Amino acid sequence: MIAELIFAGTELLLGQIVNTNAQYLSRRLAATGVDVYHQTTVGDNRQRLEEAVRTALGRADVVITGGGLGPTSDDLTKEAVAAASGRPLLLDAASREAVEAFYASLGRRMTANSLRQAFIPRGAEPIPNSHGTAPGVRMEVGGKLLFMLPGPPNEFMPMVEEAVIPALRARDPSGMKIISRVLRLCGIGEAEVESRLEDVIGGQAATTVAPLASPGEVALRLTTKAQDEASALEKMGPVEAQIRSRLGRFVYGTDDDTLAGSVLDLLASADLTLAVAESCTGGLLADQLTDVPGASDRLLAGVVAYTNDAKVRILGIPRETISGRGPVSDEVCAAMAVSVRRLCGSDLGVSITGIAGPAGGSETTPVGLVFIGLSSGSDGQVRVARHRFPGSRRVVKGRAARQALVVLRDHLLELLSGLPDPEQADSRDR
Amino acid sequence: MIAELIFAGTELLLGQIVNTNAQYLSRRLAATGVDVYHQTTVGDNRQRLEEAVRTALGRADVVITGGGLGPTSDDLTKEAVAAASGRPLLLDAASREAVEAFYASLGRRMTANSLRQAFIPRGAEPIPNSHGTAPGVRMEVGGKLLFMLPGPPNEFMPMVEEAVIPALRARDPSGMKIISRVLRLCGIGEAEVESRLEDVIGGQAATTVAPLASPGEVALRLTTKAQDEASALEKMGPVEAQIRSRLGRFVYGTDDDTLAGSVLDLLASADLTLAVAESCTGGLLADQLTDVPGASDRLLAGVVAYTNDAKVRILGIPRETISGRGPVSDEVCAAMAVSVRRLCGSDLGVSITGIAGPAGGSETTPVGLVFIGLSSGSDGQVRVARHRFPGSRRVVKGRAARQALVVLRDHLLELLSGLPDPEQADSRDR
Repeated sequence: MIAELIFAGTELLLGQIVNTNAQYLSRRLAATGVDVYHQTTVGDNRQRLEEAVRTALGRADVVITGGGLGPTSDDLTKEAVAAASGRPLLLDAASREAVEAFYASLGRRMTANSLRQAFIPRGAEPIPNSHGTAPGVRMEVGGKLLFMLPGPPNEFMPMVEEAVIPALRARDPSGMKIISRVLRLCGIGEAEVESRLEDVIGGQAATTVAPLASPGEVALRLTTKAQDEASALEKMGPVEAQIRSRLGRFVYGTDDDTLAGSVLDLLASADLTLAVAESCTGGLLADQLTDVPGASDRLLAGVVAYTNDAKVRILGIPRETISGRGPVSDEVCAAMAVSVRRLCGSDLGVSITGIAGPAGGSETTPVGLVFIGLSSGSDGQVRVARHRFPGSRRVVKGRAARQALVVLRDHLLELLSGLPDPEQADSRDR
Repeated sequence: MIAELIFAGTELLLGQIVNTNAQYLSRRLAATGVDVYHQTTVGDNRQRLEEAVRTALGRADVVITGGGLGPTSDDLTKEAVAAASGRPLLLDAASREAVEAFYASLGRRMTANSLRQAFIPRGAEPIPNSHGTAPGVRMEVGGKLLFMLPGPPNEFMPMVEEAVIPALRARDPSGMKIISRVLRLCGIGEAEVESRLEDVIGGQAATTVAPLASPGEVALRLTTKAQDEASALEKMGPVEAQIRSRLGRFVYGTDDDTLAGSVLDLLASADLTLAVAESCTGGLLADQLTDVPGASDRLLAGVVAYTNDAKVRILGIPRETISGRGPVSDEVCAAMAVSVRRLCGSDLGVSITGIAGPAGGSETTPVGLVFIGLSSGSDGQVRVARHRFPGSRRVVKGRAARQALVVLRDHLLELLSGLPDPEQADSRDR
């Protein structure tokens, strides 16, 4: 089965946004065993969109469009498909109700042009949009499947999962699928991973292994072709086992797992609770933890003690400690971890204080200097580590929050195994 | 001048990498005044590449390909262009030397297939590659310009700057550029914007206006052609003034401005400080505010009072208020705003409590229900608004944090103007 993808949007042609929908959909189609030979991007122009749809219908089995379904006059995908398929646009009653209900739920007035979203080509089926107003569309044209999906990624991606993939699976129940599995690592750098896996990466084996790196994070993608998930996992099994035997506890999860999620799972296994005190990360660590459903079982609270005064007023850190050693110091970091733990009555307290930049650095406390503290145990023991992270303000915040999660994970693994981690001393600043 | 872009690479069709070259080149062409109507991505397949090149030569003035110039057998762009243009591939002596020198400089053995990189179509010119082995190619085909560029972004992007942009500028000595300016809006929906600007959007005027929407955010892109930035701004001036006269205070900034940044600017103008108490957003609001350099001048602190116990212990909210009305209620929201303001000694206190989902909802407090509170003024006045946001956990968090910024902005504008905002009653839940 061959699919062709068409993306509509002048903002794509002007380079104002990156087409993340293209990557997402391509990856999901590959995982479903559907081949893609062409992807086309055109602007908000009815004639060029119509030509692209006509060309795609001429050479693919499935055509999927993204974008151009909204209420405004430059949303032209349905008009283009209607013209290319010779089917007039008709008002769909269910879609009209859905659009009306969406505006009502927001307490907003529905404008006349909003109704454009409820028109679909004759013979087509609307696809409910659980994350926005514009319904998607599914139709058959001369035995070919055609889907129109809305452009915003938070509407596009769920609709791929809910409507497109199941329909393609139902059409082609037999084919081989391209199946990938991602192993997510922390506390180790990309070069170190590559050198430990030199003989495994990039080979021509039935299972290929490729590194995927983003700032502060390393992952490995294992890919194979198989009839189904189970036989793919069986084929990949020995390769994954080999990687795990060499990289031991650096692997924190697979696929869509997050480091924050793995830390929350470890907290649950150890039956411990957590509170966090953040200065330079400004709430990012708490935000990442609370992105995980059910986080409130383990994360009791966070304090963004962003100013010196807040460190005194909320956390009760002595003003002299701050003025004596400076707010970015191991003493203040230790006091933050101990205080937030006491304030919240949690089992563990984590603290972060540093200079995220771009301004505010000095010779003794340069931009990127970050202290991370952990208070734990019945004796109120506190450990503080000093780091220096490169990058912009946002990147320094991200690396610092991630490192705090690595510290927590190492501590929890050590607690749960009852043994100190031999690699831990090696895991700083990655 | 119209350019068409063709990207070659199976890894793009499999979604293994994001096509950042497409965005980069598109943006640079727009800035050079070159229109792009089509972008196509094809796999490492000679026939499909050849068809794509043929189609592009038939409808554009300039064709630019990315990828497929390397030494391996799936690098097929030159073969495809040779076939589409009817020009055989010949060994280029200068390119051969350059490839040999590159391998020598790395101390690497040059493999036989590396020489493939030194072949170019008859009549073409090689483009030196200062960052890798594969030279680029420039040629003319029937009066049209054709460029082939290597795929790795660190080779592609410099070659765009060094070879493509100067050649296009030389062809179009008028030097007209496509210049865009983005107006960022808040507190108003996309359809409402469109209906108020029906006569301005999508017209054929010298300055075009197009809406750009993402979750909870609306922006307008103004685009025009001009010799330089200054004359573009002059051309766009009347259109921008017209939009601002109709949408008044909904415009919070331009281009890369953020809503959090505009709120911090308004806090500075009003000489006020802020503290935030977050429950369901879990630190996201503080994170967005602290992404802005210098935020600590205005944001004193944040409290992520994620559990009932944290609301009692850190904010001192009476336990009976929480158990009586529930943690997601206007009473608790009001108490959070008042308490965090008192705790931090700030001029303003903002609070957010709600159900981000996916679990935890009930009939009376459904997923997406969010209260947002603002405590201000010498009389400790507190205002709470109730919202219902659609979407996933992350989207609900994002919409809630954004709405809190809208509430703050409305309040600060009102304070600074000394007048109540007539549109404010209409600005909820956008």
